[in-house]
Amino acid sequence: MKKPMKRIKLIVAYDGTNYAGWQKQQNANTIQAELESVCYKYFKQKVRVDGSGRTDTGVHADGQVAVFHVSTDIGIEKIPYLFNSSLPKDIVVKKAGPVSERFHPTLDVKEKIYEYTILNAKLRDVRLARYAYFVYRDLQIEEMIEASKHFLGEHDFKAFCSADNQTKTTIRTISNIEFKIKKTREGKVIRIRVSGTGFLHNMVRIIIGTLIEIGYGKKTAENIVEAFATGRRGYAGFTAPAHGLCLKKVQY
Amino acid sequence: MKKPMKRIKLIVAYDGTNYAGWQKQQNANTIQAELESVCYKYFKQKVRVDGSGRTDTGVHADGQVAVFHVSTDIGIEKIPYLFNSSLPKDIVVKKAGPVSERFHPTLDVKEKIYEYTILNAKLRDVRLARYAYFVYRDLQIEEMIEASKHFLGEHDFKAFCSADNQTKTTIRTISNIEFKIKKTREGKVIRIRVSGTGFLHNMVRIIIGTLIEIGYGKKTAENIVEAFATGRRGYAGFTAPAHGLCLKKVQY
Repeated sequence: MKKPMKRIKLIVAYDGTNYAGWQKQQNANTIQAELESVCYKYFKQKVRVDGSGRTDTGVHADGQVAVFHVSTDIGIEKIPYLFNSSLPKDIVVKKAGPVSERFHPTLDVKEKIYEYTILNAKLRDVRLARYAYFVYRDLQIEEMIEASKHFLGEHDFKAFCSADNQTKTTIRTISNIEFKIKKTREGKVIRIRVSGTGFLHNMVRIIIGTLIEIGYGKKTAENIVEAFATGRRGYAGFTAPAHGLCLKKVQY
Repeated sequence: MKKPMKRIKLIVAYDGTNYAGWQKQQNANTIQAELESVCYKYFKQKVRVDGSGRTDTGVHADGQVAVFHVSTDIGIEKIPYLFNSSLPKDIVVKKAGPVSERFHPTLDVKEKIYEYTILNAKLRDVRLARYAYFVYRDLQIEEMIEASKHFLGEHDFKAFCSADNQTKTTIRTISNIEFKIKKTREGKVIRIRVSGTGFLHNMVRIIIGTLIEIGYGKKTAENIVEAFATGRRGYAGFTAPAHGLCLKKVQY
């Protein structure tokens, strides 16, 4: 008897340090390839696993969404254990559930939430080395918070994406930017959450780089306004490194 | 003019994942070798850096103590920054201070505090993968806490060390064992702190392995008593894996 076709949605967490990002490519470990290879192992079918979007080399995820079609009679409640017993320790399937045939992991996204972590201290922290961007110089956090408000709403983010961006339009909407600051013995851990309907390539990391340069006093909020007005990459800040970034949640 | 000889004590933290332990050896990365190579770079002298004791492959430290002699006029307050600008990101010198000529990092130890981390949950946590031993089966924590009291005080820990132990005596004293339990969405993080004047090879890991087997219901507190009485390794539990262990503090 033919096994029923199912469309399954996974919530996936990963430590991106040892991966060349989400998307499958030759001669590199990627999250997508790891998930597809587990599918092949258990279902004996070549299955394409689609993500809510790519994450770059070194970027982490707590709540990436991945979807695939498979012909199986295995109960969906068993899927996380099945995957987790074969996946490398730095990838975990947190949840699995059924979705309709029409569910599209990229096109149906309502909101994505990213979090960027900065360790602003005089000493590195070995346990945060893979997850936080270490900034030695004191950051003026109040200035950063004030400036971040300029990003809210709909803007042309042409100045805030990498040169290889290939989307038709560079207009995007940011719904929220939230700072969480935790004092530690050696300094501060600053977590910046950026929520929006969609993001251009490197957009979150350039927004964060701009805010960091504002925190240094090297740039001002005025530069954000100029960057929007001119679309020139030079007005925006540097691209903050990948390892501070984590895809927290994708909402549909 | 000849530069003054100084004896310098460092507090060192490291993520042991990528190292073959503390002690220098051929064809392997070790913490001692990394520190000595930084000394050579800055002081142009072959310096031996002595630790409070070895840590095994994969074991972490928050407060390892390391000592060396060097002829230099560099101010001691600059030492952490000097080291940290050259060390790999998974090793950090947290503090540096002068010690007397007679200070001995091994023989003068009054107490060492180790912490072992267990993630007792149905799902792995990618961010804890390097720092916590993942236990899927439910642990009876109350039983573990009760049983742990048997380890307190002076005992012959012959049954609780690896076969390669070469110390003259296997009598050691444990002054404290403390459990900290943190509930998370997916389960519990259990941190067990073990304090004592000194430890045999693998002693903390075998104590923890024994407690975990008691948590499973596979062993009982009675087995600890038998292990002490007979000195037989078989009465004790397995050697809990290295990556859950961290040398928290060394007191002099």
